[in-house]
Amino acid sequence: VLKQLLAAALTASLLTGPVSTSEGGKPAREAIGKTMEAYIAAFNAGDPAAVTALYDDSATVEDPAGSVPRKGKQAIKRFYETVCGRGSKLEPVSINPATDGSGAMLFQIRAKAATVNVIDVMTFNGASKITSMKAYSAISSAPQ
Amino acid sequence: VLKQLLAAALTASLLTGPVSTSEGGKPAREAIGKTMEAYIAAFNAGDPAAVTALYDDSATVEDPAGSVPRKGKQAIKRFYETVCGRGSKLEPVSINPATDGSGAMLFQIRAKAATVNVIDVMTFNGASKITSMKAYSAISSAPQ
Repeated sequence: VLKQLLAAALTASLLTGPVSTSEGGKPAREAIGKTMEAYIAAFNAGDPAAVTALYDDSATVEDPAGSVPRKGKQAIKRFYETVCGRGSKLEPVSINPATDGSGAMLFQIRAKAATVNVIDVMTFNGASKITSMKAYSAISSAPQ
Repeated sequence: VLKQLLAAALTASLLTGPVSTSEGGKPAREAIGKTMEAYIAAFNAGDPAAVTALYDDSATVEDPAGSVPRKGKQAIKRFYETVCGRGSKLEPVSINPATDGSGAMLFQIRAKAATVNVIDVMTFNGASKITSMKAYSAISSAPQ
């Protein structure tokens, strides 16, 4: 029984990670999760200023992954003015914050022509503002 | 019409990224995608050696994100011997390789007690071997 309990505890630890803390200026997992949820809500409200407000002043946005990152709030706001202007909506599938001030989430972008799975990987400062975002898109469209 | 075409091209570029190339020793998106698929297949076959063979000799595995990374093939193999031994299966949801030698994927871990959404973020060398893996788990279980 002890062995089973130990195995279960190990599994739980591997699956969910250690309990979140806010040590060393790192935001708690729950705080990161809230910023990610606020990001999707602001995007879907078509509000580039609200999305930009979730970023740190010197943040970078690399979208798509492999492109030259946009740096700073002005460039980031311009980016979201363009993207939000298209009327696409984000449907969250999984929001996965970590204990080290980073997080990843998968959402579907629903545009007129297609639905695409996108994974955003983000880092955060102690105030849970986004310091970097990198977007990984699926090569092919997801089934509609 | 030109404006519409331009907008469509921009959207396509933002959603899928530039066409993949193998410049500068970086693997093509398709090659990264194949390694990610092979990772899931080897894991589900319960074959820790096959999973480990997908890694670069000096690779790191940070699972869960925020934990101390395991370094090198020996430590990585030990990790997969433990994890694969539990009989959990990975169900891929989205495999999103990028053009810069990195990629992210979301899969569900189906264990006896629960199903959990996990996002793995990986980097790759020119031979499409994994040089680093970082695993982001959802805080709560996904609906079964």
